[in-house]
Amino acid sequence: MSAMAFVEAPAVAGSPLDHFLDRNRSRLEARLASECEDLGSGLSALGEVLGRAVGTDGRGGGRWRPLLTLAAAETCGGPADGALDAAVAVELTHTASLVLDDLPCMDDAATRRGDLATHRLVGSAGAILLSVGLLSRAVELLGRQPGYGGTLAAEWGSTVGLAGMAGGQAMDVSASTALRGAKRRLHRTKSSALPALALSAGARSAGASEATCAGLAAVGRGLGWAYQLRDDADDRAEDLRLGRAAGDWRPLSRSARIMRMTLRRLSRVPGLGDEGRDILAGLAVRVVPDVPKGEF
Amino acid sequence: MSAMAFVEAPAVAGSPLDHFLDRNRSRLEARLASECEDLGSGLSALGEVLGRAVGTDGRGGGRWRPLLTLAAAETCGGPADGALDAAVAVELTHTASLVLDDLPCMDDAATRRGDLATHRLVGSAGAILLSVGLLSRAVELLGRQPGYGGTLAAEWGSTVGLAGMAGGQAMDVSASTALRGAKRRLHRTKSSALPALALSAGARSAGASEATCAGLAAVGRGLGWAYQLRDDADDRAEDLRLGRAAGDWRPLSRSARIMRMTLRRLSRVPGLGDEGRDILAGLAVRVVPDVPKGEF
Repeated sequence: MSAMAFVEAPAVAGSPLDHFLDRNRSRLEARLASECEDLGSGLSALGEVLGRAVGTDGRGGGRWRPLLTLAAAETCGGPADGALDAAVAVELTHTASLVLDDLPCMDDAATRRGDLATHRLVGSAGAILLSVGLLSRAVELLGRQPGYGGTLAAEWGSTVGLAGMAGGQAMDVSASTALRGAKRRLHRTKSSALPALALSAGARSAGASEATCAGLAAVGRGLGWAYQLRDDADDRAEDLRLGRAAGDWRPLSRSARIMRMTLRRLSRVPGLGDEGRDILAGLAVRVVPDVPKGEF
Repeated sequence: MSAMAFVEAPAVAGSPLDHFLDRNRSRLEARLASECEDLGSGLSALGEVLGRAVGTDGRGGGRWRPLLTLAAAETCGGPADGALDAAVAVELTHTASLVLDDLPCMDDAATRRGDLATHRLVGSAGAILLSVGLLSRAVELLGRQPGYGGTLAAEWGSTVGLAGMAGGQAMDVSASTALRGAKRRLHRTKSSALPALALSAGARSAGASEATCAGLAAVGRGLGWAYQLRDDADDRAEDLRLGRAAGDWRPLSRSARIMRMTLRRLSRVPGLGDEGRDILAGLAVRVVPDVPKGEF
């Protein structure tokens, strides 16, 4: 599913998910825009490009990762507002990973979010430094959370580092053949680590227990992996259409299987309110619409 | 002064600085080596190169930044051991910045620390991901510090980000003419931000007051800037030798002036023990030996 499809998909009118999105989308966008303005001030070209990379011009996609953070906070009984900094940190981290993935030395992508890729606007050096700037601001935002900033920052470190997104991307870049065992598991973290942090950070901001944070992190890992498989399925459909595909790799059926498992797991996470759990499940099904919501 | 000169420079036998270095150098190297081993495990080529980038084979240079962290902790009455994680975080952050600076799209350096530059060993993509991995581990180490991990992580974020090292490097890369005003000040942070964090993080680990942390951060900024000017002076001497120099830019006299100011500032930082202050001053003069120690 494309990011725009997520934004435009009609929710059931008046559903708790609807109300949640109404309350939180514009607040999130406003905070992202003000953060980018602050971060880019005095930086000329790099500053101007920063908002475009994050998509504060309305091309930022579905923002499902930071919305997960806000939803997790509400589900755990806290106000979504208390998780706004963490949500922004999650989206800045995601954007940084996109900017790096698009570099000529990585995936060499020319466009992103309906705009030119950042390195096409400010060169590779500018894109790398902008990415480091986004990551650093994410750490600032998380570290400043009173009481649990250190824990969040440490979790961010393991999410982004060589046992997480950076390691997963390294597997992605280096894989000449199919990955197996530990390397295959590491590769998955490229997609699964950040949704896990998104959920656990939201829960933490609401003072949730370790069991709740860990349970939601596992849900986030499942969702991130199912999302990646769905993305692979779209690529594969394109390959089949062009007569390029081979083998019997069927990512769509695997994505549906993992989504079912993930939704079952969500139903067992302790300490969540019923309405909040419903909002999280609704969000998850919008992100990976391979399982009819009535099925769980 | 080259990094190796720092390592080999004779200290006054039996001086407090001597004893400090005896106590702490090998512990620091051992922790750096074990951190790199842990960080690189399961990563094949990238893992093997990690220790080389950090210089755990003995080519890591003077390690003056992390030694500042340990010295600051002792000076503030804490054990140096309590600042070992923070010191390692500082050195990993420094290494990450070197790996990025050396990339073909930045300074395009072929060698570093007497070895091939990281991108010459694992390509640009590998070097960038390794760098993100080092930065992320630094955040993990800082965030985990009990009680002040969030503060340290937030300070790390502003040190490394677009108002700090990344912004300074952006000025370095983009400058076609001499920088002025705010851009010139931002450029300085490339060299001055990390020594400031090195000192304040050590002080924080020993439970120092905000005034002490801020005072030591200012000393670190001065030292970092003097170090950079000294480096510029070495480049300029080389240019003069080759008949390439022009203008009357005299970095060496500026470096000495800033060192004098920095040492005066150190003498006024509240809450430091006399012997610790002496060790810090001795370290500073080793890093930028443009001011005779007897002068302050």
